[in-house]
Amino acid sequence: MKSSAITALIAAFGSKVTTNASVCLSHGSDESAHQGRPVDAVLFASSTEDVQRAVVICGEHELPIIPFGTGSSLEGHVIPGNNGALSIDTSHLNKILDINDADLDCRVEAGVTREYLNHSLRDHGLFFPIDPGANASLGGMAATRASGTNAVRYGTMKDVVLGVSAVLPSGEVLRYGTRAPKSSAGYDLTRLLVGSEGTLGIITELQLKLFGIPEAISAAVCTLPSEISAARTAIAVKQNGIPIARMELLDRLAICAVNAYSGLSLEEKPTMFFEFHGSETSVAEQAQATGQIVEENGGGAFSWSRLPEERSKLWSARHNAYYAMLNLKPGAKAITTDVCVPISALADVISETINDATNNNFIAPIVGHVGDGNFHCLLLLDPNDPDEIQRADGFTTRLAYRAQDAGGTCSGEHGVGLGKGKYLEAEAGVEGLAVMRSIKRALDPNNLFNPGKLGSF
Amino acid sequence: MKSSAITALIAAFGSKVTTNASVCLSHGSDESAHQGRPVDAVLFASSTEDVQRAVVICGEHELPIIPFGTGSSLEGHVIPGNNGALSIDTSHLNKILDINDADLDCRVEAGVTREYLNHSLRDHGLFFPIDPGANASLGGMAATRASGTNAVRYGTMKDVVLGVSAVLPSGEVLRYGTRAPKSSAGYDLTRLLVGSEGTLGIITELQLKLFGIPEAISAAVCTLPSEISAARTAIAVKQNGIPIARMELLDRLAICAVNAYSGLSLEEKPTMFFEFHGSETSVAEQAQATGQIVEENGGGAFSWSRLPEERSKLWSARHNAYYAMLNLKPGAKAITTDVCVPISALADVISETINDATNNNFIAPIVGHVGDGNFHCLLLLDPNDPDEIQRADGFTTRLAYRAQDAGGTCSGEHGVGLGKGKYLEAEAGVEGLAVMRSIKRALDPNNLFNPGKLGSF
Repeated sequence: MKSSAITALIAAFGSKVTTNASVCLSHGSDESAHQGRPVDAVLFASSTEDVQRAVVICGEHELPIIPFGTGSSLEGHVIPGNNGALSIDTSHLNKILDINDADLDCRVEAGVTREYLNHSLRDHGLFFPIDPGANASLGGMAATRASGTNAVRYGTMKDVVLGVSAVLPSGEVLRYGTRAPKSSAGYDLTRLLVGSEGTLGIITELQLKLFGIPEAISAAVCTLPSEISAARTAIAVKQNGIPIARMELLDRLAICAVNAYSGLSLEEKPTMFFEFHGSETSVAEQAQATGQIVEENGGGAFSWSRLPEERSKLWSARHNAYYAMLNLKPGAKAITTDVCVPISALADVISETINDATNNNFIAPIVGHVGDGNFHCLLLLDPNDPDEIQRADGFTTRLAYRAQDAGGTCSGEHGVGLGKGKYLEAEAGVEGLAVMRSIKRALDPNNLFNPGKLGSF
Repeated sequence: MKSSAITALIAAFGSKVTTNASVCLSHGSDESAHQGRPVDAVLFASSTEDVQRAVVICGEHELPIIPFGTGSSLEGHVIPGNNGALSIDTSHLNKILDINDADLDCRVEAGVTREYLNHSLRDHGLFFPIDPGANASLGGMAATRASGTNAVRYGTMKDVVLGVSAVLPSGEVLRYGTRAPKSSAGYDLTRLLVGSEGTLGIITELQLKLFGIPEAISAAVCTLPSEISAARTAIAVKQNGIPIARMELLDRLAICAVNAYSGLSLEEKPTMFFEFHGSETSVAEQAQATGQIVEENGGGAFSWSRLPEERSKLWSARHNAYYAMLNLKPGAKAITTDVCVPISALADVISETINDATNNNFIAPIVGHVGDGNFHCLLLLDPNDPDEIQRADGFTTRLAYRAQDAGGTCSGEHGVGLGKGKYLEAEAGVEGLAVMRSIKRALDPNNLFNPGKLGSF
């Protein structure tokens, strides 16, 4: 089946398809700890029609298909299963089709990255706020319902995608969603595709909501005496309705990592990073109110700045955190957790998680989008220590259930992919899994669209 | 089938079920111009288990089921088709199960109305912002993806429903969504149910996002020289990023209606109503910026107030508009349109619509949630004039396509119901309708959940 599919794909697409071993391996690998494996071929699609033709050919030959953006998934979304796959690389779907200043929206092809989009928006005085850290493709961000540091104010991909074009397993192209700010006409197929991890449709275009670049932006950083007091600070900021744009936590261990990595001498305490957007007066008001909350929680001096360069400098520890943390244990296997809980539960869940890591002698620094109750533990494990790897599984399982017991989710922003399927039943219920399965079967009866992802329900 | 179903329902539920003729007619009627017809029986459910048992019984006997909130639909959602229906009245599902001050969320049964919820939230300093005008049930508002005057700032039901419990056609209870502010775990079944008009599940409980009552609220009213300049004002307010809480338009004819109905002598010009939420300084800043835009568009004096009683007085023309407009032509059949367009298209679409009404000698005042590009024409027709009724169909069809051609939707907030199905293909495409049909068949193979709504795709 595979070889006949590949033959047919090459006949149809010529040099747009490759079976080059290293390209096939890189397209079956991501930034997670999941073991990559090569796909059977990669198609560099340059139009929705290309994707459509590939879907029809793969359908005839029953070859699975996995869409590929930039490969920055942290949950193994692009890794093929036992039946192999064609990877459809969307990096040539890189056109910004429309920017509507008047309506604060734009239409882009799925392979456009968020940095390229923002670069193109700058002269319009506009920006696209969703920032997962990686320079991911917007199609991939939509497929995994990504969010990141700005979500506390601007929402997640679920909130900013107005409409999609997607090739369905039937080979038909769904163009759904209008440019109106709201609609009550029909099932919300846009949001069904957002977060569906390539299992229901391959997104080729997106209509996206944009925002005006704020008149004023200020940044602030401070230390807190403990992770608990930092979480309490986040809770109070939210409860006081301060429209904060970003609110991030690095725990003590993450700060130590940054010091070691960047040769800095930051005070080795849990540290919070804030960003405020608005008018000049509103930003000053927000910063003052936040500073007061920090003080009430025993926080250290509240450094803040409105100048772009100084803002970047203030936030540099946050920006370098990921690589700094990886560097705490070079050669380690790094597992990233992704729980998200109601804000009131954040202090307890973080504190129990740190205790659990300490009891297990894990090196597991924490970076948190704490304004959303979302935090990541970066578990750094010795790949040659099977006992440590096994104990880590216990830790991540306890963490997922701890978050779910607190009313939260096993995945705030990375998606289910290959790793979180085992926690999904506790969250969605057997009925939820059954509904997902019914929808998947109705739209993709041969299970060819990214099979095995979303935990296969 | 019907009679055996009713016998079984009475055996199961006793006096909770009624076949009383007037109760059956009122439960098969709504506030729209669609002709009501009696359902076969009404069940006053008082628990999710009641709904579940009724779904199983109706499934065995193939009797359709229609959920009923308060009957305030404007698109015939509660009217049965030719196979009759059991109406499940949710008014006894009226418990507020939880209010979480710390997380700004609550859990309610589906029959709780928005006014009752807001009454219960007041002492918590919280409010639920979605306000469609009618004191609708929250289950009905979710099922139709309702919005209203506050949506420009706080979003629609799609944005505030964190999770649902719903009885599925299989009789199983889906409990979906967590209390975390965001999640990437699984298909977005919550938003699939929101707006599904009772065709996929009967919502029995909702987890809802709440907001803190703003520190300051101010209201303002002004006249504009024309509907076009009013629409331009709305466009500029949005484009300037003013976080306005409400922005409503009454056209000249609507103001005449209010004057006649309430014995007032408002200046008979298009009039805009604004509400600003925020801190004291932010509200003042917003009002000032908006006032300047009004002035630039040739608007009249900008009256504003921060005192609750004066705010109500300023807004009274808006609050009384619906009944005042109905009164323009007593005994008339009133058809409400509901298009929503990208804000940049608003001035043109409103202006063409007013011209179309004028050319047809229609009395058709306009009320618009113009901050969202959404406006309603209230077409007042002589029920005994078949020519006028037929010409009205041409008018509403032209309006729907005009909005769609401008990138908008035939329904901003009322839903598809019985009346908008004919416009859906132009908006969703044949592929979109096919996907909706597949999902419907997968979950409700016998088509017993509110059949014929959503235009039957």
